[in-house]
Amino acid sequence: MEDSKYMRYAIALARKGEGWVNPNPMVGAVVVKENRIIGEGYHEVCGKPHAERNALASCIESAKGATLYVTLEPCCHYGRTPPCTDAIIKAGITKVVVGSSDPNPKVSGKGISILRRAGIVVKEGVLKEKCDELNTVFFHYIVTGTPYVVMKYAMTADGKIATVTGDSKWVTGKAARKHVQQLRHKYSAIMVGIGTVLKDDPLLTCRLKNSRNPIRIICDSHLRIPMDSQICRTAKEVHTILATTVTDETKISKLKSLGITVLTVSGKDEMVNLPILMQKLGQLEIDSILLEGGSALNYSALKADLVQEVYAYIAPKIFGGKDAKTPVEGDGVLSPEQCFQFTAPEISVLDGDLMLRFKFVRRKV
Amino acid sequence: MEDSKYMRYAIALARKGEGWVNPNPMVGAVVVKENRIIGEGYHEVCGKPHAERNALASCIESAKGATLYVTLEPCCHYGRTPPCTDAIIKAGITKVVVGSSDPNPKVSGKGISILRRAGIVVKEGVLKEKCDELNTVFFHYIVTGTPYVVMKYAMTADGKIATVTGDSKWVTGKAARKHVQQLRHKYSAIMVGIGTVLKDDPLLTCRLKNSRNPIRIICDSHLRIPMDSQICRTAKEVHTILATTVTDETKISKLKSLGITVLTVSGKDEMVNLPILMQKLGQLEIDSILLEGGSALNYSALKADLVQEVYAYIAPKIFGGKDAKTPVEGDGVLSPEQCFQFTAPEISVLDGDLMLRFKFVRRKV
Repeated sequence: MEDSKYMRYAIALARKGEGWVNPNPMVGAVVVKENRIIGEGYHEVCGKPHAERNALASCIESAKGATLYVTLEPCCHYGRTPPCTDAIIKAGITKVVVGSSDPNPKVSGKGISILRRAGIVVKEGVLKEKCDELNTVFFHYIVTGTPYVVMKYAMTADGKIATVTGDSKWVTGKAARKHVQQLRHKYSAIMVGIGTVLKDDPLLTCRLKNSRNPIRIICDSHLRIPMDSQICRTAKEVHTILATTVTDETKISKLKSLGITVLTVSGKDEMVNLPILMQKLGQLEIDSILLEGGSALNYSALKADLVQEVYAYIAPKIFGGKDAKTPVEGDGVLSPEQCFQFTAPEISVLDGDLMLRFKFVRRKV
Repeated sequence: MEDSKYMRYAIALARKGEGWVNPNPMVGAVVVKENRIIGEGYHEVCGKPHAERNALASCIESAKGATLYVTLEPCCHYGRTPPCTDAIIKAGITKVVVGSSDPNPKVSGKGISILRRAGIVVKEGVLKEKCDELNTVFFHYIVTGTPYVVMKYAMTADGKIATVTGDSKWVTGKAARKHVQQLRHKYSAIMVGIGTVLKDDPLLTCRLKNSRNPIRIICDSHLRIPMDSQICRTAKEVHTILATTVTDETKISKLKSLGITVLTVSGKDEMVNLPILMQKLGQLEIDSILLEGGSALNYSALKADLVQEVYAYIAPKIFGGKDAKTPVEGDGVLSPEQCFQFTAPEISVLDGDLMLRFKFVRRKV
């Protein structure tokens, strides 16, 4: 009971790092002595100290003989910062309660072994599920080396993302659109197809106060991006990556001079090869992508088995229209058995609009 | 408190008539004497006695001096059965507690006046909202003279009712499909376009045990129905109505000889004029229609302002496909402001599939 109480608090602390720590995990830690919290901390921003060190540094009295609650197994290697296991041992902590194990199969359990060898009592798996949930993105990224992809779309109750004229302002209400901004803050990058840039000339920034802009990734197979688009004009302020199959050195050098990172990815049917692009993005430490379409890119990503989650916002309205766009198009599957299968959704209501969050189960082929 | 308790029970009794009483309302009644239920009843089937008479007839002792709880204002006119007000007065009931008022502006309040003039105490509006909810269909029908139309469709999370090949077996799971059967039992009729008949050759019956088949209505503007379709072959057993703009006497008399009712409705753009068809169906005492598409008919019905409710079943899967069908097509609206606006939905989960029930608010033009 007491253990869950402190771990729950550590989880709440961890969440404060959302959007700021990528590609690191969100981690929270609490130092408890004689049933009093004497220190707490969380991983605040990538490159800065880990949660354990922040918690120990915040202690209002000596941590000697105290228990440390931490949502993720402490690290035992030199990364951007020195190993946390050292700090824990040095502080005289006598018991460590851990939520998630380190997901990286190469290091999993090593942090805990080091603590135990130092004579510290370690209890594992407290609120493990909730702690794991905190770092779905990190766990995926650390194991696969490629970004966790979340597809997002807003549609009417009859499955339209725009009217027949292409007008999509607006499908959903303010609350739903604000929630999308939270996703833009949460995930490291946002990805759209060039069609979206040509049609809407979007900025793709995060409009929340106290937030971070996602890295913008444009899939532009044939290098059609206009040099006077908002994306190009703001590339100096917002990190922008353009993926293309084209090797037009003149245009590429112009784009680079604007501050855009251009990735040339070997084409597949003259389109950017998405699995290869994902590997390159992973190497650039992009751990997560919010995929905001259009419909053709959404289908390509699904078909390449790259989508882990879907956020579907559904407005209680109907547009109709045989030629109105739907969120996922492309070739489509041939039979219902070949569908992309997701879990039953988590459901929220945002000012009358529905928000459904589905997790990918498998491609039934 | 006591009043709500007995009225709630009367509502539960009323519900037992669902699917059987149309075009009459569902009504339940309870007779209470000295805090004991001495009689109860409901309107069981159209043409048979009303709830009040069933409740009085079931009394295990004299109803003299008792209170009658009834979900709807008692009738005071000769319809299929004699007025209930007479029976209530004759039984010596001294108090009547009523839920809904009679929605028909021509008769509303008359039943209650008659009871009061006979010296009976009448309390109105107890659990009025719940009692009204029971008879949304009846209230609409009695006021407008046209059927209450409920549009139903099953789609994927990306808004597809079939794959690109037209394969729609199945989009949703068993529980959702079983729920549709309950709707077929609940509403008087089912309506589809000829496209659905040509593509699926459906039976359109209700497959639940202890249920009623809806009247089948086929919108077949150009009289394309095949004489060997399942609809034609079973028209002797299941009441079937065909609406057309064509006056081909040979085919019409063949269809009539199969037992099909053929309604020739003046065309509008060579399509059946739906508002006129609805008036004709209302005259045939069809109080409610479950509209099961296809996409073009769905849009026509919306555009003619004929749809009161939508049941959307959403499966947690994605088909994709630029050419895959969506639930509402036709021309579609031009701008989002012109959308068909519904209420925030009631949400249920049926074995992983979502069921959303929207009520029509207005056409925003």
